[in-house]
Amino acid sequence: MYNKIVLSSDEVPKKWYNINADLPVELPEPKNSEGKDQINALQKAFTKEGLAQEFATDRYIKIPSEVRELYMEMGRPTPLSRAKRLEEYLNTPAKIYFKREDTSPTGSHKLNSAIPQAYFAKKEGIERLTTETGAGQWGTALSLACNLLDLECTVYMVKVSFNQKPDRKNIMDIYNGKVYASPSENTKVGREILEKNPSHPGSLGVAISEAMEEALENDEVKYTLGSVLNHVMLHQTIIGQELKTQLEIAEEEPDVMIACAGGGSNLAGSLFPFIKDKIDGNSNTQFIAVEPSACPTLTKGSYEYDFGDVNGFTPMLKMFTLGHDFVAPSVHAGGLRYHGMSPQVSLLTKEGYIEPRSAHQKEVFEAGVCFARNEGILPAPETTHAIKVAIDEAIKCKKTGKEKTIVMNFSGHGMLDLKGYASYFEGTMQNAK
Amino acid sequence: MYNKIVLSSDEVPKKWYNINADLPVELPEPKNSEGKDQINALQKAFTKEGLAQEFATDRYIKIPSEVRELYMEMGRPTPLSRAKRLEEYLNTPAKIYFKREDTSPTGSHKLNSAIPQAYFAKKEGIERLTTETGAGQWGTALSLACNLLDLECTVYMVKVSFNQKPDRKNIMDIYNGKVYASPSENTKVGREILEKNPSHPGSLGVAISEAMEEALENDEVKYTLGSVLNHVMLHQTIIGQELKTQLEIAEEEPDVMIACAGGGSNLAGSLFPFIKDKIDGNSNTQFIAVEPSACPTLTKGSYEYDFGDVNGFTPMLKMFTLGHDFVAPSVHAGGLRYHGMSPQVSLLTKEGYIEPRSAHQKEVFEAGVCFARNEGILPAPETTHAIKVAIDEAIKCKKTGKEKTIVMNFSGHGMLDLKGYASYFEGTMQNAK
Repeated sequence: MYNKIVLSSDEVPKKWYNINADLPVELPEPKNSEGKDQINALQKAFTKEGLAQEFATDRYIKIPSEVRELYMEMGRPTPLSRAKRLEEYLNTPAKIYFKREDTSPTGSHKLNSAIPQAYFAKKEGIERLTTETGAGQWGTALSLACNLLDLECTVYMVKVSFNQKPDRKNIMDIYNGKVYASPSENTKVGREILEKNPSHPGSLGVAISEAMEEALENDEVKYTLGSVLNHVMLHQTIIGQELKTQLEIAEEEPDVMIACAGGGSNLAGSLFPFIKDKIDGNSNTQFIAVEPSACPTLTKGSYEYDFGDVNGFTPMLKMFTLGHDFVAPSVHAGGLRYHGMSPQVSLLTKEGYIEPRSAHQKEVFEAGVCFARNEGILPAPETTHAIKVAIDEAIKCKKTGKEKTIVMNFSGHGMLDLKGYASYFEGTMQNAK
Repeated sequence: MYNKIVLSSDEVPKKWYNINADLPVELPEPKNSEGKDQINALQKAFTKEGLAQEFATDRYIKIPSEVRELYMEMGRPTPLSRAKRLEEYLNTPAKIYFKREDTSPTGSHKLNSAIPQAYFAKKEGIERLTTETGAGQWGTALSLACNLLDLECTVYMVKVSFNQKPDRKNIMDIYNGKVYASPSENTKVGREILEKNPSHPGSLGVAISEAMEEALENDEVKYTLGSVLNHVMLHQTIIGQELKTQLEIAEEEPDVMIACAGGGSNLAGSLFPFIKDKIDGNSNTQFIAVEPSACPTLTKGSYEYDFGDVNGFTPMLKMFTLGHDFVAPSVHAGGLRYHGMSPQVSLLTKEGYIEPRSAHQKEVFEAGVCFARNEGILPAPETTHAIKVAIDEAIKCKKTGKEKTIVMNFSGHGMLDLKGYASYFEGTMQNAK
């Protein structure tokens, strides 16, 4: 019986898996909005390789050996653990496995895409990458990846978050990222906003505009994104491919697989290689995406063309969306507060391959505390969403007596989210209406 | 070539190693101070098994299978990693290995002793454990261990730390520990102090008194300690024994082994099994203990009988000490601010087996940032002391051309110490005079 399945370095996958090759129906293409050419802008802003991967249809794309080496130096492969104590606590016949993406040095799965994005930029002679960050996980990972590859990194962090979460700025400083409260004086768009309103609180839309402006106006600068787009989903499939090997070693066929979903990157990364088997007709696994009730993109949004950002800088993407002007309540799972969803994840949800569920904030924190008290490991607020549904499914098994194998992606740790847990214990935490 | 040596579960040691069996000269016994009987008080306060282990002279002590199981459930064995990128950055012919005690769910090596202490208490019918905590690592580990073993846990945290470090209280809440700012209303000694001075800031001495008072006055309550005493050193040798197996797999003979030292627990745990070989005449390894210049117990203290605590509640221990009334400046490495040192570590230092060094705060944070930028992993302020000396030794190798194998214990991560790093970057960090 295995409680922890650890792979050797040779077992780190040599290729990324591209779901574009296997989608059950054709993926609607991105398009410009009337009278604008956002596709052209996006093409200028991204690296050549990032763009090529975005539209690639090859089933597998080789991971450059330097990237694979960096994956290993930064802790890959990650372990797969079994939550035996949690199973016993729940008194369930189900088995619960969790893939440890929290063991990354930056504490989440985000480094899996930050490393290749920085690598391709370096190879193309780029000197600096820009990005925006909300919760801060992506900005942290990109700061480290750029530092490892000797690139500069500029992170625009929404001013309210910047002021509320000094630890996030601190950790990006350590990794040599340059973090600016957005709106900033660095960019035209930032200066214009500050001129009108010097105490503007910032927004993800403004931060994206600042990061993109720098890339559009400087040849040696490129813009990067940590979720939603296909090249990011692609890089993250390193998770699901390792997980496949690990479940084979454990001689387990997953009955239920669960991941939280904001823009879709940890879900795509952990589940796409398994969803392939379902598309091919070789699997009966149930796939569940969990999102906050406060930001119910997949459960209450519409499947339609919408902008990826608030200001309409990006092309229109066909996806589940709450509307690009939707402002999610300020839940602690900042990484799940996105109005849209990866077009691939959206399509697979529309087609019935992925079942979406939503959960309230207090319930997910309760699940997170239950997990930490049994397994010791403290989950990020985003990750608690997956845990909540894993526990729900395990409790169902207790009622039905079915010995299901439940597998979830443990996307990140919560060491920088202790204030969220404090509000849970203090009783000041609110659910969205 | 190995960059990461991962052991299987069967390779978790089955016994702890007890240095008392191999000390090169006799260990001076604890004694009472004039007219007092602290030894008797201590005997009442601790569990029977803890006391028995404290004075045991068997070379190996069996790890109960339930404890070994819990070690595994909480992440043991821990990996040994090679800091290849740091070596390249330093351009040194030396090899630098680090043992990953930061991978424990509570973020440091402290759980290695918290688990057996809670286990023995449970077995003896105890209902609740008490302790004091300064930096918070021990209180965090004991909270989790008690929760795993269905015991209550009361932690007295020095009031100034309690107020300065809300995240430490938050994480102990998550692990179901009851944390009180000390002085508290729970105990006679606390109430007396508060009556005289309601805004008393607290001290480690007061916190120890409160925790011990509860154990002395209630049969179902015992007191625990996270360092200094031999049974704690013993439990921590799980680290060094794993490390021995890992270095054998890597086919490495360590030339230099390094650990930071506060009360001595991570140093003893990682180095005692190797120091045994030196005592036996079978090793030429150099062993280095690193302490803060702000609290130079081994480098500037005297080897003499002193109390373990500020108030003289403990027996007198023969050890290196700065005097039990020494108040260390408020450095960020709170775990290294202890006036004394494990009697065993003290004796081995006195006899020349361990070489003590001290390092200033700014230098160690510089080393910590250098490590994080190269290896990704963020060290705790305590751990940066070991890193500083590992880097110094690697730079020496660059000058001499010697290909030394340097091994350090990476005692904990710094995710809850980001304010310390912020003060380093802001330039507000001070060195002790």
